Amino acid sequence: MRAFMDKDFLLKNDVARELYHTYAAGMPIIDYHCHVSPREIAEDKRFDNITQVWLGGDHYKWRQMRSNGVEERYITGDAPDYEKFCKWAETLEKAIGNPLFHWSHLELQRYFDYHGVLNSGTADEVWQLCNKKLSEPSMSARNIIKNSGVALLCTTDDPADDLRWHKIIAQDKDFDVRVLPAWRPDKAMNIDKADYRDYIEKLSEASKVSINSFDELCRVLSERMDYFSEMGCVAADHGLDYVMYEPANPKTVSDIFDKALKGEAVSETDILRFKTACILFLGTEYKKRGWVMQLHYGCKRDNNAKMYRKIGPDTGFDCISNYTPAAQVADLLNALDVDDNLPKTILYSLNPSDDAALGSIIGCFQNSDACGKIQQGSAWWFNDNMAGMRQQMISLANLGLLGNFVGMLTDSRSFLSYPRHEYFRRIMCNLIGEWVEGGEYPYDTDNLQKIVKGISYENAVRYFGFDLKTKM
Amino acid sequence: MRAFMDKDFLLKNDVARELYHTYAAGMPIIDYHCHVSPREIAEDKRFDNITQVWLGGDHYKWRQMRSNGVEERYITGDAPDYEKFCKWAETLEKAIGNPLFHWSHLELQRYFDYHGVLNSGTADEVWQLCNKKLSEPSMSARNIIKNSGVALLCTTDDPADDLRWHKIIAQDKDFDVRVLPAWRPDKAMNIDKADYRDYIEKLSEASKVSINSFDELCRVLSERMDYFSEMGCVAADHGLDYVMYEPANPKTVSDIFDKALKGEAVSETDILRFKTACILFLGTEYKKRGWVMQLHYGCKRDNNAKMYRKIGPDTGFDCISNYTPAAQVADLLNALDVDDNLPKTILYSLNPSDDAALGSIIGCFQNSDACGKIQQGSAWWFNDNMAGMRQQMISLANLGLLGNFVGMLTDSRSFLSYPRHEYFRRIMCNLIGEWVEGGEYPYDTDNLQKIVKGISYENAVRYFGFDLKTKM
Amino acid sequence: MRAFMDKDFLLKNDVARELYHTYAAGMPIIDYHCHVSPREIAEDKRFDNITQVWLGGDHYKWRQMRSNGVEERYITGDAPDYEKFCKWAETLEKAIGNPLFHWSHLELQRYFDYHGVLNSGTADEVWQLCNKKLSEPSMSARNIIKNSGVALLCTTDDPADDLRWHKIIAQDKDFDVRVLPAWRPDKAMNIDKADYRDYIEKLSEASKVSINSFDELCRVLSERMDYFSEMGCVAADHGLDYVMYEPANPKTVSDIFDKALKGEAVSETDILRFKTACILFLGTEYKKRGWVMQLHYGCKRDNNAKMYRKIGPDTGFDCISNYTPAAQVADLLNALDVDDNLPKTILYSLNPSDDAALGSIIGCFQNSDACGKIQQGSAWWFNDNMAGMRQQMISLANLGLLGNFVGMLTDSRSFLSYPRHEYFRRIMCNLIGEWVEGGEYPYDTDNLQKIVKGISYENAVRYFGFDLKTKM
Repeated sequence: MRAFMDKDFLLKNDVARELYHTYAAGMPIIDYHCHVSPREIAEDKRFDNITQVWLGGDHYKWRQMRSNGVEERYITGDAPDYEKFCKWAETLEKAIGNPLFHWSHLELQRYFDYHGVLNSGTADEVWQLCNKKLSEPSMSARNIIKNSGVALLCTTDDPADDLRWHKIIAQDKDFDVRVLPAWRPDKAMNIDKADYRDYIEKLSEASKVSINSFDELCRVLSERMDYFSEMGCVAADHGLDYVMYEPANPKTVSDIFDKALKGEAVSETDILRFKTACILFLGTEYKKRGWVMQLHYGCKRDNNAKMYRKIGPDTGFDCISNYTPAAQVADLLNALDVDDNLPKTILYSLNPSDDAALGSIIGCFQNSDACGKIQQGSAWWFNDNMAGMRQQMISLANLGLLGNFVGMLTDSRSFLSYPRHEYFRRIMCNLIGEWVEGGEYPYDTDNLQKIVKGISYENAVRYFGFDLKTKM
Repeated sequence: MRAFMDKDFLLKNDVARELYHTYAAGMPIIDYHCHVSPREIAEDKRFDNITQVWLGGDHYKWRQMRSNGVEERYITGDAPDYEKFCKWAETLEKAIGNPLFHWSHLELQRYFDYHGVLNSGTADEVWQLCNKKLSEPSMSARNIIKNSGVALLCTTDDPADDLRWHKIIAQDKDFDVRVLPAWRPDKAMNIDKADYRDYIEKLSEASKVSINSFDELCRVLSERMDYFSEMGCVAADHGLDYVMYEPANPKTVSDIFDKALKGEAVSETDILRFKTACILFLGTEYKKRGWVMQLHYGCKRDNNAKMYRKIGPDTGFDCISNYTPAAQVADLLNALDVDDNLPKTILYSLNPSDDAALGSIIGCFQNSDACGKIQQGSAWWFNDNMAGMRQQMISLANLGLLGNFVGMLTDSRSFLSYPRHEYFRRIMCNLIGEWVEGGEYPYDTDNLQKIVKGISYENAVRYFGFDLKTKM
Repeated sequence: MRAFMDKDFLLKNDVARELYHTYAAGMPIIDYHCHVSPREIAEDKRFDNITQVWLGGDHYKWRQMRSNGVEERYITGDAPDYEKFCKWAETLEKAIGNPLFHWSHLELQRYFDYHGVLNSGTADEVWQLCNKKLSEPSMSARNIIKNSGVALLCTTDDPADDLRWHKIIAQDKDFDVRVLPAWRPDKAMNIDKADYRDYIEKLSEASKVSINSFDELCRVLSERMDYFSEMGCVAADHGLDYVMYEPANPKTVSDIFDKALKGEAVSETDILRFKTACILFLGTEYKKRGWVMQLHYGCKRDNNAKMYRKIGPDTGFDCISNYTPAAQVADLLNALDVDDNLPKTILYSLNPSDDAALGSIIGCFQNSDACGKIQQGSAWWFNDNMAGMRQQMISLANLGLLGNFVGMLTDSRSFLSYPRHEYFRRIMCNLIGEWVEGGEYPYDTDNLQKIVKGISYENAVRYFGFDLKTKM
């Protein structure tokens, strides 16, 4: 029996251990897509206790607590932080095989030097130990990021955002981690949302242009992109139910936008047309700027109406959608590509049954614009567990070039989630080690080193074109 | 090489063997969903020969025989039982990797003490041996159930059923296995079937109420549920092509029912509306009674029209459907939940590509009503093989709490199918053992014991609220 | 660590090694579906260099080169062959885990006796070595086929084809490999294509009948089938986006065809009706002749419009479609079966998420017409890698009789692709070996031998009814 989560955790063969410890472990982290708050970095946020860090906003954990029949007051309610933590510790006892079990223990090991098992019996001990540690300066937001080996991270930002916190961070010479904004224009596209007009007003204010037509919306977005570019942005991200392709002529799109601005109802088809037009416009702009377009899709959000009314979005009530038409993904990419407007693109489907379809789609739009121009993103959200990450890499390897993969991102709201990169690298090295040990790939450490370092770090730097040396 | 199906069958590591033999093997069986005949239990049915038991109604086996080019007369026709058995033995030779190969040999080992291999060479020997054994009193329906370690089983019963056989079984003090009815109201919902009016008439007779409106139908169903409750029923089950959510107002639903009663054609949309209304009504009633709602879906039935005309339904001509819209599952559960009417629910999709979607949906409706209130059911029907059960448990573990899983059910028509619980427990212990041996979960036998006993038996008892002590 | 791709490549246990080396390796190859050119066989084509063989038409390799950012001129353009080869060698360095990595090295080992690793460092050495070998007479098309152990292969041929090259090959007494035509009537069905009328004209010329109605089309196709039969054809193949079932009466179908012949637009529904009618007609004809019907579906072709305009179809721009309605597959088979017109059928979906659905569908239409009458085809195209082939066999084993599987085909345009049969057999023997070593299947070499030889060779011979002795 192997020891519980020791230094060779998940590394089940000699080559895996060599690859991980010699090449992967030491690579810096590029977290090119996450949801941490730039303000909390700028203000170098501190935490009173482990419940704040772990259970303050992590809806992955909230779901599991609800699955264990825990009352909501111990989850998002007003129960004392200590009691919340104890409920989480109890829940973990049932979480055998769950990535949260591993992530929690990796975080306890890496940040709190606790190498035991968290459960109801040890909850009090761990509570004390973590809180003591959290009172140390090394556990401020910035120090956590720095000590985690992060070289660069991209937050997720609305076009209307003034990026003030990014400026402050960039000007701070004492903090040598690059924190870049990333462009997330979902609200500008979501013509079907009740607050769409409010958003357009907000965007008008931010841009000091009164937006009265689709053309003006495009112009404003273009100017905001220029501003984001100045602030170092090289990545855009879209969150979609599914990738749609419903082309329409410019006049139709203008009319749809006009209707929406007047508060008139917009049909299902018109919603799809409008969003298609937005992505075609935005994709073209990304291409001009050399940005990377990320499309995250296959998610049905806010399924629990009762809880949505109580505690709002992003609280653990989303699910995987299996309506994810591959044909429309291909058609959308083609519509951009046909006029040479397809930017570097990373596709993430939340539906793991799409792995093979996605792997085959990306192969249709590769060209010499970039090495691995179109990427299948790392196993996302519900899939970023051992089985999911392994499956994504095997599928990608079968259908494309694993050696060009840009690798892991946390997609996280937490400052303690960087060990997920370690988790990913261990799984990746173990898989590659298996192939080498099995005689399926040559034991050539020069080449293996390139592959492992590439997927861990170097491919992302090259692909996004990150400038890691200069701060603003 | 490991010996063929010996005591450590499927247990490939030390921890797996310890967990299975020490904790899992001895747990009683709760078979909370099956299709055995309560009459045959009440009458303590005896079998003349192994063909009657094995090939009398098992359409899993029939399919394989047809796949082997066997003529129908040896399958469902009038060929002598001995010849049928020989054809089955021959078919097994090709069934490498098939669960029927394992189930058949587990049954031969556990019930007939035969530890060899059944094939065309041994068919005669096995035929003699089995038939001799079947002539012993220990091989009556009740004794098989008892000696299999079954503590409780739920049959599958129509609302119009008078449950007379359940009464007889319950009153028999010599038979200490609880045999409970389970509510299966498909026929009351299947407004699209040619014999719907006949069924409503039958239900009217059973309830002594002439059903002339949807309201009356609901009232009658409610009364029948009360009767089922008195008889110990705590579980309902629905067999659906897919989970639909097509809401309609009460007047519309009433009109649809009226149309159907008059024999008029009902549109596709109206069928979906009617069924949606039925499930919303029934789910609400289940919630009131603390019942568990099971939704089995993703099946397209009776695909072979020629054979359907000859030998009817449930004869081996069903297939997996891949039209299983996850969005509608989530919307239906939400529609119940929004008014606090969502009962404990177990979801089973026949499409294994739905595993991840399902695992993410159940997480959206968990709350403190129950520990593991919404469950993803064990790998069902075409999926209850080693790969399928393993995949279902890995997916469930990744997305929810495996520790709360209510585990296995046979879904079977046969009295010899209880070793499928053993099969499941071996696979479960092997998976958990792998994780522990691999250092991915701590070797803490107190906790592992709870998990293993829970999934084998205790979770189901707690979840359904079975009263195992009193008989009626 | 196991040596890189040595004689026990992919054979990870003793039983696997025994089964492969003793039984599988020596079996002849039946390549019942491929795309090699009968003309090139008849003319006994020779190759100037390895780029011609490997990169002349292999769009699998082209995709990977594009994924590596290689410029199109080194792929399908006018760059020198040597430079193209070097770009391919470089690309291979990133292709860890990709079947092309294995196939390329298997081909280097088996045909060129090169046992090293191809990469940018060895490209020149390999280039020299391969080209020298290619200049030898043993490396002509026919000699490659013969020396690969091929007993029989089926090409892919249009109904309008005169099969002149097949005649020449058949008459050549010195070449004892059977090369049969296979019937691929896609163009006769693709009423939605711009060049449909041109095709009908071409078919009219080939058949010397002016085709002016659907009835005449059917008559001509029937005559062409008779001609194909005379030439030894026993297999038909259809390439479909998805399997449709949209029945229509004969008058409607006739009218649709008339419309198309007049150059009028045909609606989406009418296209589906027409194609359904074609398959029902053709399937019935196949049944009469004892032919095998292959349905390949789940592919969306020519997704990159820009490249399609430049270099046409089959150049590496196709993808997996996830619109593959299982219900329509079942309904189409039933429509043929209900009148006893369902031929032996092999179903291939390009969407690997369909494996279980397919495995369950084939079980609905098995009967005593043939042993394993309805087959799930071997993992196809994007799926014919280690994981995909293994998954297909596990799924098939779980749902049907693996012992009756007709096994591998190359589906290839290259004369060097026969080691894919070796690759498949190794994976198959390894899987079976695992089961036997694990105590899940008895170590009975008589039976295992039958299974392994069956899947490697004998099942296909029996199933298709190939006559391997006589040449024309």
